[in-house]
Amino acid sequence: MSDPGELMAREISEQPDVLDRVRVDSGPEIAAARQAIVEFGARVVVLAARGTSDHAALYGKYLVEARRGMPAGLASPSTLTVYHSRPDLRQAVFVAVSQSGGSPDLIESLGVARECGALTVAVTNNPRSALAAAAHHHIDVRAGDELAVAATKTYTAEMMVLAMLFGGEDDQKLPDLAAVPDAAAATLELADHPYAAAKRYRFAQRLVTTARGFSYPTAREAALKVMETSYLSAQAFSGADLLHGPLAMVDGELPVIAVVTPGAGGAAMQPVLDKLEEAGADVLRVGDAPESVGEAGEQPMLPVVSRGVAEEFTPMLDILPLQQMAWRLSLDRRQDPDRPRGLLKVTETW
Amino acid sequence: MSDPGELMAREISEQPDVLDRVRVDSGPEIAAARQAIVEFGARVVVLAARGTSDHAALYGKYLVEARRGMPAGLASPSTLTVYHSRPDLRQAVFVAVSQSGGSPDLIESLGVARECGALTVAVTNNPRSALAAAAHHHIDVRAGDELAVAATKTYTAEMMVLAMLFGGEDDQKLPDLAAVPDAAAATLELADHPYAAAKRYRFAQRLVTTARGFSYPTAREAALKVMETSYLSAQAFSGADLLHGPLAMVDGELPVIAVVTPGAGGAAMQPVLDKLEEAGADVLRVGDAPESVGEAGEQPMLPVVSRGVAEEFTPMLDILPLQQMAWRLSLDRRQDPDRPRGLLKVTETW
Repeated sequence: MSDPGELMAREISEQPDVLDRVRVDSGPEIAAARQAIVEFGARVVVLAARGTSDHAALYGKYLVEARRGMPAGLASPSTLTVYHSRPDLRQAVFVAVSQSGGSPDLIESLGVARECGALTVAVTNNPRSALAAAAHHHIDVRAGDELAVAATKTYTAEMMVLAMLFGGEDDQKLPDLAAVPDAAAATLELADHPYAAAKRYRFAQRLVTTARGFSYPTAREAALKVMETSYLSAQAFSGADLLHGPLAMVDGELPVIAVVTPGAGGAAMQPVLDKLEEAGADVLRVGDAPESVGEAGEQPMLPVVSRGVAEEFTPMLDILPLQQMAWRLSLDRRQDPDRPRGLLKVTETW
Repeated sequence: MSDPGELMAREISEQPDVLDRVRVDSGPEIAAARQAIVEFGARVVVLAARGTSDHAALYGKYLVEARRGMPAGLASPSTLTVYHSRPDLRQAVFVAVSQSGGSPDLIESLGVARECGALTVAVTNNPRSALAAAAHHHIDVRAGDELAVAATKTYTAEMMVLAMLFGGEDDQKLPDLAAVPDAAAATLELADHPYAAAKRYRFAQRLVTTARGFSYPTAREAALKVMETSYLSAQAFSGADLLHGPLAMVDGELPVIAVVTPGAGGAAMQPVLDKLEEAGADVLRVGDAPESVGEAGEQPMLPVVSRGVAEEFTPMLDILPLQQMAWRLSLDRRQDPDRPRGLLKVTETW
């Protein structure tokens, strides 16, 4: 039996290696799937996933919409499995993302999508899974066994696969993501900052995370990590949606974490930050590490070393200090982030 | 100046009349749009909205997927307005839903979608709005002026429009929704029950709402109403997603509201209810009113009179006791649900 948090800490630290491995070793599988999507003449991409993988899928949706010039949607698996609809998917790519490849509703959804004419792609950490077997193309995220219940390395590895599948400007050519693993390592080295920031939330019951564009999935995933491992009510909002209603609940007693890494998405957060300041909110920023980040705790922030990485790929970095913060917070609250109460590693839903 | 909650109470009570008016008077506009969608040869539907209207759009997505046999997606407006993508939408219907028709990001998104080849439909409560003018088809929800900041009657009226646009089995024929307004009136008459239920949350700081399928938008909208008017951290989860992680935070101290109206979606909630019971959760059900609902407060529930209404149309009813509960809770907490702090009726985002 491992110590509390030992598994999650190890898996967080493995991410630079995992990102490099999936980038290199899964390259041929991804190139084949990418080519098949071009030849298939896809007009729309439908992504299906649950939990952490659903946030990777949301990242994929942004990439498809912003970089591939196609509409994309997140499937509501219940329409296929509960309501038994049989949509016309003859020009659709259906991408199922799942760490285990074992969730019955995803396996059934992908099977139905295939029957309905879709080109199907499974992205999993288990090439022997039923989901992998059911799809036209399987891409292995090669993260190695993930033992902590709270997923970390499979999340960033799934994003790497989706970045290679749908990122870049050229239809035929994989985008260059070689800088990401080193940037991830440099970001993880600044762990003292997220550990210091975690102290501030020791007795918080509620938390809001917010971001726009490519980093919105980071806000969603960070909220889930904190819910799973520290049992806070953590809510994620796109910066724009936050202003349409939920802003009313924000005051100095409800902490906010805002992802404002450089780029158009971070820039679009400025009006949101202004409104949060007006509301007297306590805002912790996830942002680019200044040249000298100073001592941890002096000016609390969650620094990201994204230099040399295009904005659309920074979500693989943004999430790292948030994983570290969630891990530390859980331990500070006398919980075990490896074994959240009431959860198993593989959740089966129908 | 009206009394606290006077506007919201009036607008909640107007819903049966509004539903009947939009059903009858907007029929020709909806029939024309429906016919145009058939002739256009649409292969995918993209819906764009913010706030409460985004929950109506989510309802539309379920209808399109489950009843129209097309993939559907909720647009991330930032991909068009922040990242300036120009997707190929020549077989897409783009539906923008907005009470005011005035949010700049929706107007810009619809304009871009139209340039990119989409058939565009605007659903608003303002036929003189910029969004209405920009679309190929405008459908007026005819709810009359909505003065409370927290939207109620425009939400159910938007759903009525989307139900007529995308519901039913026949491509050419509007579905029969004549039973909905009377069912709404019968449901609203049971207000004592939601008022009694509100007492239980007088000092709650957090709340979870959950549902599956067609009623999942109800869970989302109920959470927003409670956030806007009572400043609780209210989180909505699809029943399946709740089991993938967030379940860990649920214990007897975190109240849960579960929508379990009759039908396949409600039935699919059973495993979720079982898990919640295991976790010791305090669950309040939104469900079909028994023949005799008894005295309010005896056995707390939020009763819905859905007899004679098909499952896919019950979301226009499910939300009603939740609106009433949110209104009562806000007043009990000495707030004014008509004028939440920090919000204006029309939120402009880019």
